[in-house]
Amino acid sequence: MFKKLAPENIKNYTREELNVLCDGLRKTIYDTVMECGGHLASNLGAVESTVALFYVFDFPKDKIVFDVGHQCYAYKLLSGRAERFSTLRQAGGISGFPKRNESIYDCYDTGHAGTSVSAAIGLAKARDLQGEDGNVIAYIGDGSFNNGLVYEALNSLKILNTNVLIILNDNGMSISPTVGGMSDILSEIKNNDQAENIRLLERFGLTYIGVKNGNDVEEMIDTLQEAKERLQHGSVLLHVVTKKGKGYEFSEEHPTNTHGVPPVGSPKDKEYSEVLGETLCELAEKNKKITVVSAAMKEALGLSEFFIRYPKRAFDVGICEENAAVLCASMAAGGLKPYYAIYSTFLQRAFDEIIHDVCAQDFAVTFCIDRAGISGADGETHQGVFDLSYLSLIPNLTVAVPKDTEELKQMLELSATYPHPLAIRYPRAGRVIFPSNAEIRVGEWEYLHQTPNGSNVTVIAAGERCLIIAMKILHALQEQGKSFDVINARFVKPLDLECLKNIQSQTIVTLEDNVFFGGLGSMIDGALLRMNKRCNIKNFAYKDEFIPQGGVAALQSEYGVNCQEIQAFIEQVLA
Amino acid sequence: MFKKLAPENIKNYTREELNVLCDGLRKTIYDTVMECGGHLASNLGAVESTVALFYVFDFPKDKIVFDVGHQCYAYKLLSGRAERFSTLRQAGGISGFPKRNESIYDCYDTGHAGTSVSAAIGLAKARDLQGEDGNVIAYIGDGSFNNGLVYEALNSLKILNTNVLIILNDNGMSISPTVGGMSDILSEIKNNDQAENIRLLERFGLTYIGVKNGNDVEEMIDTLQEAKERLQHGSVLLHVVTKKGKGYEFSEEHPTNTHGVPPVGSPKDKEYSEVLGETLCELAEKNKKITVVSAAMKEALGLSEFFIRYPKRAFDVGICEENAAVLCASMAAGGLKPYYAIYSTFLQRAFDEIIHDVCAQDFAVTFCIDRAGISGADGETHQGVFDLSYLSLIPNLTVAVPKDTEELKQMLELSATYPHPLAIRYPRAGRVIFPSNAEIRVGEWEYLHQTPNGSNVTVIAAGERCLIIAMKILHALQEQGKSFDVINARFVKPLDLECLKNIQSQTIVTLEDNVFFGGLGSMIDGALLRMNKRCNIKNFAYKDEFIPQGGVAALQSEYGVNCQEIQAFIEQVLA
Repeated sequence: MFKKLAPENIKNYTREELNVLCDGLRKTIYDTVMECGGHLASNLGAVESTVALFYVFDFPKDKIVFDVGHQCYAYKLLSGRAERFSTLRQAGGISGFPKRNESIYDCYDTGHAGTSVSAAIGLAKARDLQGEDGNVIAYIGDGSFNNGLVYEALNSLKILNTNVLIILNDNGMSISPTVGGMSDILSEIKNNDQAENIRLLERFGLTYIGVKNGNDVEEMIDTLQEAKERLQHGSVLLHVVTKKGKGYEFSEEHPTNTHGVPPVGSPKDKEYSEVLGETLCELAEKNKKITVVSAAMKEALGLSEFFIRYPKRAFDVGICEENAAVLCASMAAGGLKPYYAIYSTFLQRAFDEIIHDVCAQDFAVTFCIDRAGISGADGETHQGVFDLSYLSLIPNLTVAVPKDTEELKQMLELSATYPHPLAIRYPRAGRVIFPSNAEIRVGEWEYLHQTPNGSNVTVIAAGERCLIIAMKILHALQEQGKSFDVINARFVKPLDLECLKNIQSQTIVTLEDNVFFGGLGSMIDGALLRMNKRCNIKNFAYKDEFIPQGGVAALQSEYGVNCQEIQAFIEQVLA
Repeated sequence: MFKKLAPENIKNYTREELNVLCDGLRKTIYDTVMECGGHLASNLGAVESTVALFYVFDFPKDKIVFDVGHQCYAYKLLSGRAERFSTLRQAGGISGFPKRNESIYDCYDTGHAGTSVSAAIGLAKARDLQGEDGNVIAYIGDGSFNNGLVYEALNSLKILNTNVLIILNDNGMSISPTVGGMSDILSEIKNNDQAENIRLLERFGLTYIGVKNGNDVEEMIDTLQEAKERLQHGSVLLHVVTKKGKGYEFSEEHPTNTHGVPPVGSPKDKEYSEVLGETLCELAEKNKKITVVSAAMKEALGLSEFFIRYPKRAFDVGICEENAAVLCASMAAGGLKPYYAIYSTFLQRAFDEIIHDVCAQDFAVTFCIDRAGISGADGETHQGVFDLSYLSLIPNLTVAVPKDTEELKQMLELSATYPHPLAIRYPRAGRVIFPSNAEIRVGEWEYLHQTPNGSNVTVIAAGERCLIIAMKILHALQEQGKSFDVINARFVKPLDLECLKNIQSQTIVTLEDNVFFGGLGSMIDGALLRMNKRCNIKNFAYKDEFIPQGGVAALQSEYGVNCQEIQAFIEQVLA
């Protein structure tokens, strides 16, 4: 129906037709997400407001920035991307997030929380300074509204002295239910329409409109027309309430479960997170000082059970990665043993606090870093391919990469008495793959395969994905009567210099699920040079590029960790 | 007077004696800062409230976290560090910031803005969970109160469900005058005692007390006693107004000039910042799209004149490093040409936004990064020794290091038409030192010295400090009839692979004002291995440790860039 729909035609729809359009959008979003995976509930909730936006505003002359981007599917469908929408989140297909290189309707890429208000202000200021026209809109959920960056942006609205429309889409949920003081303020406004809370927002230079029903397309049209009018005279905060998952019963009742949905029939592959949750529960039973901090992701990280069993020692602070890091540092300063569980890509937000608060004070905070390496369908903004580099450069920090889920468990057990900052990074999917060691020691590598009488090649690899590649090549070459050694570099920092020194092979190959600069290969290169070891070395790591969405294995292969290439290289050396 | 003063004795002072104590503290702070350099105005303003804190609370059983730490001198003087206070900011001496390893009275190290509220909450929660006693206080200036991290912390107060006292020391200034919406709210409270603004703060779970005169020791004692009482029942925000620089006429009138004060008689050495300001003014005259964004540091960065000449294109957003980065990215998205000027250590706060907003979208934002390398007297929390590493790992980002102030000017001129993200990092002090080139090109190095007929050694160095060392050694060796080549690695990323390939020397030496991991030396090591170049290589860079306060040259030398060692190494190779 809307597949051939030009955005400008929406303005001529009757209100009844608009409602039909909404139903069609919802069905398409539902069907596509069932097929491709994606963010269901938040996108379903945003359908009516998006249709109303097209009715009232003139995109792309008017510009909209979707915070995070989990609400942009209807916008994509209505801005000429319906025919390609079945390629959602697939390699080369439509992104699950706004992407400037996909359509002129997308003016600013998002993915991490809290950037939309700053971005709208910057875009509006650029418009003003160049004497251009057009409205600029930030569309933000109440979960993101907790993020400190949004406060900084609101705070600078008067300084930049420009007009933006902020649509606060309040569904009472981030990925987990939204928590914290600002959330309470929003609840009070919703429930009581408290004048002073509204005036608070006006202090920042905003006219407040609300609370409106974001799932009523007619109410939204009227409201947006009012907002557009007022926007001529100053910035506007439009507070709309929506139902996350609106229109699909299952999703409405289970918005957390349906926030991110894997394609139907895909295997259950959350074993690292399960091991994290179970092991932390066991450790916390023995050690009352253990606390867990998460930034709005506790379910996906495997921590639901921990939060139920130890509610006094489990803290979900909402999408506040920096605050979470400082809380961990200070809890350690106060004598506790904190664990900070987070996705690799989001931990980037706490980079300064890892340095300044945790590591400079040498606190025994353990970072449990999920979704490390290529994360796949979410694309550029969500790849966890920088962490080995940005963590290894920090003094006092130990960086560990378990070879499989069993080794994650061992590392967590080790962390319980480890007196320094420790980062453990692992990918999403996992399982027990390799024989496990009786004990692991910080900075100690292990041989997964050692060739009797030695080999000309030693492969040093970090993490399950790279070790699987190494072992696969090994088995292929063994069938040809050839062999090489394989080392599990389970600590990327410190490197096992003793092990490195004792390698007899003429050629060393490094494999990692990370960019080359500053990662495992780069650190080994430097170490070999410093120990004056004369051997050939070949580093396989990701190219110095942003990696788009796609399948994990295909992207690994395309961006520099290519099984065939690695095998060919080793074969040639062993020839 | 207070040199022998035990903290607990203050409680027995008459109010007159307390006032005498305040005068003594102020004089000591003033005299010491004139001698050693340091943060004058903010520390002078905090004297009375600090004395009152000792009168009312029991440190170190009660704990206090000073935000940033620019207000902790009186606290240090009163907590047993008066006799060593004359060593302020000197190597091995008293730190200008709270330091746990200095005294049991310091419970949490600070230096970067906005951490104190999170830290107090974490410490209080640790107290609760372990069944301990004691009050926890965050002492924060209104400048830091703009930082998003504070908002995140306030937002999580109810989640962590613990009691802290937040003393908001409101002097209307961060380093520059405080700006933005929250600042306006504070002003309104001060001027009108507006009930609804106060109730806003109460929404976050805080009882509000204020506005009190923070420079009146008697009023402060009464107020703190009230706060202490209320703290038994919930968290408290105590809003005090102080005069930054209180008690010294010059400082009261010029709080920005006296925020950070160099020792009397030290040479004027702000040449990089002057060149930045002048060159950006020239460029902005020609290109109306140029904007400048700063995070509360415009004077120290050399931008005062720019802000006067181009007030519509200059934005100081307060201590909001992340917001500043997203504003730059979105201004670029809107067609402007933004420059983000900042200190190296503070840019760490925007690490995620550099990746996610600027570089993933390949926007032509130029980062002008001052105080790179060892920054000296501010110590661990302020060293700019990580930037080459954390910047070089980011795709699409070019990383430049000018060899002197003239080359900074050339790089800025180059930036005007450069269509990608560009980071230019330079130390505090600078001048024109080396002969300048007609033109510089991205990714191109230059020889500062080339030995006729070649040499066995080539030194590759980045930045003024390292190139001065290289040239000094060269001149020393030339007197012995020896010589080596010196390359100015003015682009750390991309490396000049062509130049690297053509080096004929058997030995390459790298020098940088940065940690080794992920920096210039590490990148050159990897590049040489990849091009299969068989030469000896020796990397001089900083050790993998946090570098304390001290003189720049002495710290460089102690932490791994040691002129004698480098010379000895080269001599030995050339022997």
